[in-house]
Amino acid sequence: MAFLHQTPLPHQHGGKHHDKPKDNDLSHDEDSDCEYTLTKSGQPFTTSHKIHFLRKSKSPGCPPIPISPFHDIPLIHSHTAYGQKIYNMIVEIPRWTQAKFEISRSLPLNPITQDTLSSSPSKPRFVHNLFPYKGYIWNYGALPQTWESPHYRHPDTGGAKGDNDPIDACEIGSRIAYTGEVKRVKVLGILGLIDEGETDWKVLVVDVRDKLAERLEDIWDVKRECPGLLEATRDWFRWYGVPEGRKANKYAMEGRWMDRKYAEGVIKECEDFWRELVKGKVKGSGDVCLKNTTLRGTPGYLDPSSVKLPPNEDLPPAEVDHDLEEVAYVDREESDDEDKDDDDSEDDEDDDEQDSLARNDDWDDLTKDAALNDLKTMTINLKYW
Amino acid sequence: MAFLHQTPLPHQHGGKHHDKPKDNDLSHDEDSDCEYTLTKSGQPFTTSHKIHFLRKSKSPGCPPIPISPFHDIPLIHSHTAYGQKIYNMIVEIPRWTQAKFEISRSLPLNPITQDTLSSSPSKPRFVHNLFPYKGYIWNYGALPQTWESPHYRHPDTGGAKGDNDPIDACEIGSRIAYTGEVKRVKVLGILGLIDEGETDWKVLVVDVRDKLAERLEDIWDVKRECPGLLEATRDWFRWYGVPEGRKANKYAMEGRWMDRKYAEGVIKECEDFWRELVKGKVKGSGDVCLKNTTLRGTPGYLDPSSVKLPPNEDLPPAEVDHDLEEVAYVDREESDDEDKDDDDSEDDEDDDEQDSLARNDDWDDLTKDAALNDLKTMTINLKYW
Repeated sequence: MAFLHQTPLPHQHGGKHHDKPKDNDLSHDEDSDCEYTLTKSGQPFTTSHKIHFLRKSKSPGCPPIPISPFHDIPLIHSHTAYGQKIYNMIVEIPRWTQAKFEISRSLPLNPITQDTLSSSPSKPRFVHNLFPYKGYIWNYGALPQTWESPHYRHPDTGGAKGDNDPIDACEIGSRIAYTGEVKRVKVLGILGLIDEGETDWKVLVVDVRDKLAERLEDIWDVKRECPGLLEATRDWFRWYGVPEGRKANKYAMEGRWMDRKYAEGVIKECEDFWRELVKGKVKGSGDVCLKNTTLRGTPGYLDPSSVKLPPNEDLPPAEVDHDLEEVAYVDREESDDEDKDDDDSEDDEDDDEQDSLARNDDWDDLTKDAALNDLKTMTINLKYW
Repeated sequence: MAFLHQTPLPHQHGGKHHDKPKDNDLSHDEDSDCEYTLTKSGQPFTTSHKIHFLRKSKSPGCPPIPISPFHDIPLIHSHTAYGQKIYNMIVEIPRWTQAKFEISRSLPLNPITQDTLSSSPSKPRFVHNLFPYKGYIWNYGALPQTWESPHYRHPDTGGAKGDNDPIDACEIGSRIAYTGEVKRVKVLGILGLIDEGETDWKVLVVDVRDKLAERLEDIWDVKRECPGLLEATRDWFRWYGVPEGRKANKYAMEGRWMDRKYAEGVIKECEDFWRELVKGKVKGSGDVCLKNTTLRGTPGYLDPSSVKLPPNEDLPPAEVDHDLEEVAYVDREESDDEDKDDDDSEDDEDDDEQDSLARNDDWDDLTKDAALNDLKTMTINLKYW
């Protein structure tokens, strides 16, 4: 078994921590005092733009150490007095913005870069303003030290493989975050998206310091405190790619929101997949860069003093072709019908988003048992008779 | 009858245009070549902030003349080759913003100012971000030379009096406008809002230069080209005041969108009310300032050379208490129920927005006859049996 230990702080480099090798150390490390800072190189809205992460030192005079946000930021920040987990979340896309920033899976130390258009890879990708929304409707990002394994077919997502990225998160607090912000969040629920045929979970979270947070513990609370948010989130993810020529996405489990317990189970699975990955135990994961500066004993470990990041530039954004003011309209019903025509081979239930939205107005869904869900499935199928 | 003629241009001041006194001159004047400019004084987001309008001169060397956007900008800009009217619209609130700017009814030359909170009149008013929307969802403003008379009870709005302002307009083009922009627009339809008991028509328009414009001639086109927009607009106006403690608004005609022909009829009525107003023929309109610089012979006419506007300052906005990032959630169903409990004396049909939204998914409403509408009304009433 590879030795695995998260180097706690730069001034402890070289210290001997080999006396208690525990395979699970990472999942229980708490970084309550860690602070992060960013280095921005290249011009935003170009392919040269990179946002690298550094962890500040607690010792005066010690410089911050470069880290990977994917591998070196602990998944669990701390626990509440009641034993509830507080997670770290890395913000990629601030609420109401459109630039598709994401943690690079393949670049060394996984900086945040901007996704590019599949049709022209030199051009930065922006999501369209899907009417009635402006850009992303939450602070969007990922949970560190998780991985949706492309080698795993989740039984609840119709056997679709993982999307090869950290698990995604939508933070619903009042504050607009910034790209690269590391937030401390509570997990509230999860939605099983099938994005272009891959499993792509969306975890719903709230910043623990947000004024909403004290009233939100689970998905039912979101339904009560933020009416319309769960439905809008489902609507957004289903249709957001259509204006750029992608197909509508589908949902696992008929688009039902799952509760916190279920969400934390999925996150734990993804954490386990990440742990195998970072230990170098996963074959066929060549496009994920495993370089890190805190996980000593892992194949990707680098001495932080050997890492040179590009200098911080913080340049103004480049001009872009994409019309950021434009609003895109998608006829949900018409697109739904087209979708049905195209995908006869797939499960009809997935297509039935309109019904699912309506059905979920009765939120008791979440608390009722399998028998009721079976009855609902029968009702949906009736539509096709 | 008072002589009424719109002074065409500053270099023609003093010219004799009395030879053809026509009462209807104003409504047919076309200003195809007019351009407007703004003078901004006081700090935005304070009560001292004023945006005054000026009309540029066509003669080199002649200074622009101060005008009233309410009275001196023609309602009709021009006509298309097919004889369709192109209207002027004054933008007060750009899309996706929240500051409640509006043409002042009572200040001389009717500058744009920011509305204040009824609870604390020294504080500027901002609308809340009613989830899932950000600020206003269109460029919002008014049509000049119109007036919703508070002395008139419209038969189609349940006899509610006019709100004493120019008629409001929502411009749905792609471009974000600026406060004070004078747009040339096509009229597409109208929604009869009852805002705190007053008739408050909302005209739907599109900038004639917008790329959407060539596909939009009437309300049916909006339904087809901009799916969801009519429903979202109705939803927005019904609920936007609730987060600031106001009651939900109601609709005339069960919230049905009316077509272009109906809209142009309402606009014409409001133009006629304005004409009576500006001629000084309306008693009890003391809070509307009639000062103008182009309508010679009217009681409010001022020689433009006698008008001194405050100097242009163009200051940065003041800091405000209002949390512009915050999102407000309104439970439409729960609020609907409360509304019903409160308003037993009023028409139950108005309260039934949720049903109305659903019902309007069948857009054939607009083309079908009164018998069908009666049937629908019966269906709604069934809910209360």
